[in-house]
Amino acid sequence: MINTVRAEVITIGDEILFGQIADTNTAWIGTELTNIGIRVIRKSSVGDQKEAILQVLAEAHQRADIIIITGGLGPTKDDITKKTLCTYFGVGMVRNETALALVTGFFEKRGREMTDLNRGQADLPANAVYIQNDWGTAPGMWFEHQDRVYISLPGVPFEMKHLMSNRILPKLTAHFQTPIIKHKMIRTVGIGESFLAERIEAWEDALPDHIKLAYLPSFGGVKLRLTATGADNTLLDHQLAEQVTKVMPLIEKNVYGFDNEEIETVVGKLLLEKQLTLSIAESCTGGYVSAQITKVPGSSAYFWGSVVSYSNSVKVTQLGVLPETLEAYGAVSEETIRQMAEGVRKALGTSVGIATSGIAGPDGGTPDKPVGTIWIACSTEQRTVTRLLKLGQYRDQNIQLTTMYVLNMLREEILNQ
Amino acid sequence: MINTVRAEVITIGDEILFGQIADTNTAWIGTELTNIGIRVIRKSSVGDQKEAILQVLAEAHQRADIIIITGGLGPTKDDITKKTLCTYFGVGMVRNETALALVTGFFEKRGREMTDLNRGQADLPANAVYIQNDWGTAPGMWFEHQDRVYISLPGVPFEMKHLMSNRILPKLTAHFQTPIIKHKMIRTVGIGESFLAERIEAWEDALPDHIKLAYLPSFGGVKLRLTATGADNTLLDHQLAEQVTKVMPLIEKNVYGFDNEEIETVVGKLLLEKQLTLSIAESCTGGYVSAQITKVPGSSAYFWGSVVSYSNSVKVTQLGVLPETLEAYGAVSEETIRQMAEGVRKALGTSVGIATSGIAGPDGGTPDKPVGTIWIACSTEQRTVTRLLKLGQYRDQNIQLTTMYVLNMLREEILNQ
Repeated sequence: MINTVRAEVITIGDEILFGQIADTNTAWIGTELTNIGIRVIRKSSVGDQKEAILQVLAEAHQRADIIIITGGLGPTKDDITKKTLCTYFGVGMVRNETALALVTGFFEKRGREMTDLNRGQADLPANAVYIQNDWGTAPGMWFEHQDRVYISLPGVPFEMKHLMSNRILPKLTAHFQTPIIKHKMIRTVGIGESFLAERIEAWEDALPDHIKLAYLPSFGGVKLRLTATGADNTLLDHQLAEQVTKVMPLIEKNVYGFDNEEIETVVGKLLLEKQLTLSIAESCTGGYVSAQITKVPGSSAYFWGSVVSYSNSVKVTQLGVLPETLEAYGAVSEETIRQMAEGVRKALGTSVGIATSGIAGPDGGTPDKPVGTIWIACSTEQRTVTRLLKLGQYRDQNIQLTTMYVLNMLREEILNQ
Repeated sequence: MINTVRAEVITIGDEILFGQIADTNTAWIGTELTNIGIRVIRKSSVGDQKEAILQVLAEAHQRADIIIITGGLGPTKDDITKKTLCTYFGVGMVRNETALALVTGFFEKRGREMTDLNRGQADLPANAVYIQNDWGTAPGMWFEHQDRVYISLPGVPFEMKHLMSNRILPKLTAHFQTPIIKHKMIRTVGIGESFLAERIEAWEDALPDHIKLAYLPSFGGVKLRLTATGADNTLLDHQLAEQVTKVMPLIEKNVYGFDNEEIETVVGKLLLEKQLTLSIAESCTGGYVSAQITKVPGSSAYFWGSVVSYSNSVKVTQLGVLPETLEAYGAVSEETIRQMAEGVRKALGTSVGIATSGIAGPDGGTPDKPVGTIWIACSTEQRTVTRLLKLGQYRDQNIQLTTMYVLNMLREEILNQ
């Protein structure tokens, strides 16, 4: 029996507490640690104050085997992580020659002059194992202290990710014996959390003890996450697959994908499989649908382009919407959305066209068409389908929800092909 | 002298620890609390385990006056916040009739049947003050316990925000006497953190004790945050303005905005002021630039539309790029980007056109044009400027950085008008 290896993740920086930057690092670290069978038991953020940092380190020491610290490694005066780690470990600061060579090379390569602040980035607590950062001048550091591993990383996301992926995760896997934790995510759309729960209640109650279920609601869909813990990789995979097979008949119509498959990845795969090409006409979503589609590497194989038609003149000249349709029914109408989807498909010469037009808010609503009134459409060579959405009052949310719905409409229409 | 009011924010849910959803709530809460003069001293996330929740509550009790808890209030079995709060406070669970009426009404309005799980959402710990959630069935709750205020809110972002904005923040302002904390953010682009630090070193060293400076680096820019603490609102504003006046001559060319002004908001204002209209031709950014521009409410006043020209055929038919240019120089070239910016401006009939074309990666690079080779352009009635960017290997990062650079190019060109 292998003991659970427990990790805590600590972010340092007033800007996180004050909400001036969003923390995307710890979610990423959580996923990576989970994947190698390390259990994240707590995440904490504290400000750039020595006492607060010392306290959270001491607390984490009581609970965790691994303590990962991000942030506070910049060259400027408000960054105090290294000094505080010296106090915590009871050691002095030492200039690391390898680190110094790297910082020097970094500046030489870019033809920039180096400052004393930059040189200071090569100073490390004496007990640190230096972990080379190929993407910036802040060092990675690994400490072993009273049977715990402490890791300090820069807060800049791409530097942190590079250090974790290439240096830290392999070192952790070598250092610890970890149990196996496997996840399976089932992604649903078009059904609320409590209805989903009722529909699968008997199945949920019959889950074995080592498999846990969680409901993760988000915009436009609920994800079901199964987590299995054990010692045998193949067995766990098999047991998870078995549970998926059992539950699928109950929810099949609402499932669009598994694990990390975002809906834009799912529709991309379907378009490729069926050898279809896609174009998009966006009004109220303003480019967001296209941005989601093109986030996917390789999307140029099936996505040809979009027209973001914010003004009516662009709807007419680029998409061929009839001025008399706009005149008679308005830009937010079934007649217009139909012409937008058909128009973009023809103008860009693709097999499928999708379209959005509505009132995202906060302004522009009328008694007839309040904020949140949004039409979506999908046009193929066979037919054009349209749908009216009645969403809420928040602009961001309306844009995101509309995107989810129109991509799901696209998915359903491709499956009908 | 007013004492500092300290708050801790606790998020509950395995999905946060395992990185399966990104936590955007706590950044938002941090901003709102800071704005009303409450100091956030720690953020913590724990999983859906009773012991872990009890422990983090007890710890927060030692340090903070206000403890805000989000998450774990859903109707399903994995949500245990309410039960755990009962244990923590030593009280039982009581059905709240107001809450029940609300849940019932919520389902009636939508013509959906109610389940026992839904009815359970009206059960609250006996010492809870019920805080009405107009946007969902999970309740808000306010507790006063041993001279501390505990607040429990649903984790769904728009429900949490509604409850905080309309119910909790006013109640906190009424309950506590808070010192005044004022922030001023100066947003820069095109200069690295350590160079900025050197340039403003003398100014930084001369800052009075009650004004703190932080450097917040992010994609394409570094933000300088000044934080002033005191008792006199007007005086603090005046002192912050004074410091901004002192530092601006040192960094003026690199400053694009202040406080929460994102670059898309800044260019929007400039376009309106100068009565200019904007169109966009996007290749490698795939709609992301347009999505940023249209995130801004009211952007339809100056933004007419975009063409996302992922395929060469769309560049030719919709933007008027010459086939012989694509043939001779390729889609990622100065000649093509110039025609894209000029083409979209003419095709959509706007006064300004901007364009992006490059190799976002991970595939598509060649020895001549490696991944990260990206051209941007801005065309006005006076002239067309172009610029070659040499970025990195990560697709997401290339898309975001290109967007920042092309919007800054747009800003500079508008200022030249």
